[in-house]
Amino acid sequence: MPETNNRLWQQRYRDGAPQPDAFIPDAVVATLLEHRSVRAYLDRPLPDGTLETLLAAAQSAASSSNLQVWSLLAVEDPQRKARLAELANGQAHIRQAPLFLVWLADFSRLQRLAERREVELQALPYLDSFLMGAIDAALAAQNAVTAAESLGLGTVYIGALRNQLQAVSEELRLPPLVYPVFGLCVGYADPDKPAQVKPRLPQGLILHRETYAVPEQEAQLIDDYDRAIAAFFAAQGQQSPGWSRQSLERLKSIETLHGRERLAEAVKAQGFPLR
Amino acid sequence: MPETNNRLWQQRYRDGAPQPDAFIPDAVVATLLEHRSVRAYLDRPLPDGTLETLLAAAQSAASSSNLQVWSLLAVEDPQRKARLAELANGQAHIRQAPLFLVWLADFSRLQRLAERREVELQALPYLDSFLMGAIDAALAAQNAVTAAESLGLGTVYIGALRNQLQAVSEELRLPPLVYPVFGLCVGYADPDKPAQVKPRLPQGLILHRETYAVPEQEAQLIDDYDRAIAAFFAAQGQQSPGWSRQSLERLKSIETLHGRERLAEAVKAQGFPLR
Repeated sequence: MPETNNRLWQQRYRDGAPQPDAFIPDAVVATLLEHRSVRAYLDRPLPDGTLETLLAAAQSAASSSNLQVWSLLAVEDPQRKARLAELANGQAHIRQAPLFLVWLADFSRLQRLAERREVELQALPYLDSFLMGAIDAALAAQNAVTAAESLGLGTVYIGALRNQLQAVSEELRLPPLVYPVFGLCVGYADPDKPAQVKPRLPQGLILHRETYAVPEQEAQLIDDYDRAIAAFFAAQGQQSPGWSRQSLERLKSIETLHGRERLAEAVKAQGFPLR
Repeated sequence: MPETNNRLWQQRYRDGAPQPDAFIPDAVVATLLEHRSVRAYLDRPLPDGTLETLLAAAQSAASSSNLQVWSLLAVEDPQRKARLAELANGQAHIRQAPLFLVWLADFSRLQRLAERREVELQALPYLDSFLMGAIDAALAAQNAVTAAESLGLGTVYIGALRNQLQAVSEELRLPPLVYPVFGLCVGYADPDKPAQVKPRLPQGLILHRETYAVPEQEAQLIDDYDRAIAAFFAAQGQQSPGWSRQSLERLKSIETLHGRERLAEAVKAQGFPLR
């Protein structure tokens, strides 16, 4: 499948990264490279067994020390999806997608077990626990995304579910030692509003060997990438100031955090002191 | 492929979760369900193009606001792998695997860009940035794992790379605003020490609908799972006290964090104040 490889590579990197001679052809890799985030969904129900299949894929991802410190909350109620959409910066695709998955870091299961066994979990208050829950949930979620795309479904992650973490936690009745890491819309992509594969930074800007070194020509390669991103949006009839300006805009002020500046406070309220 | 489905389900859940009638057959889902962590590797080099293929898969995962706040550090030097193994609780498979990948949360690329454009990134000091880097890296890494397994390779995540985060950061010469999220061994599994699919908690303990509710019979289902895990280890000639005792042991004292109790201090030193 060298021709498929060429197409997939070009689609993902545009002219920013010459394709290596030795890129290995593989059907699963092709599924991964075809990923695109879907923000327009059909009003069409999912096949029976979809949730169970996605969850089995998710649970098959690695888990730190097999602690399985995550849970999955499936939301299908239109009213609840609408309320969550409001809490996540008004993103309409949360309402639109038939299934909205909330990926939770969850130490409450082990805390309940510890209480039954009368053990105190002294490691819980440390930052590493908070992080481990997020990593476990992210590895699981990415497997679910891969499974969903293989089943012909589209997805998009919703990081904005952390904008108002306390209100989301109340809406979902999350107990202490549980927090939402992100959301994920799942549904059939609307073919009238097709999502495209977004170009990424060239491999040379991401990959380091043996030790970290700032890539030569970093500034130049980012300029090139800015043009690739502007062209990507232009092809869809959208304007973009390019990646650099968009990214700096996203991080330059506290206002652009849309409430996430209170994340530390909110997760502490959920029982993670981040010691 | 209903028979394959039965086998995959039974392998992943044992008797803990009855297979739903509607589990959807799919070749990519089968690849995901076959995942196992490999801790014994052959001394056999990887095919040309492996790293580029895994990285293309990794970069195809979603990235929060497309900020791409992660980098990949590939370690192949035997001496460096040996030093990293020492820093990660002496795990021999880090030395053994031909390729050791360190997944980095990386805001330094955007910080360098911001300095060139004379912009201050006021959102960086907040906890959400620290978390976003970890999530981006984890989604990317999980795609690389899926690609590696499809190419016939084995992997295992190394969370213990956070045990001595400051020493690891020095070894890898990480600049400020970069921290290692975890490591990943990549290589050919040693067929003489085959890895098995580890059973997971039944879906009923992980899945919630609409709002969070403590599952009925949680204690009973965990007891059953303890027996499944004990049987899993016994089949490999290993003793296990069961999942409950192992998990509580892992979290019950600061000593079991093996240095990770200093993670907050170490990431603050790397420029993440976790505000």
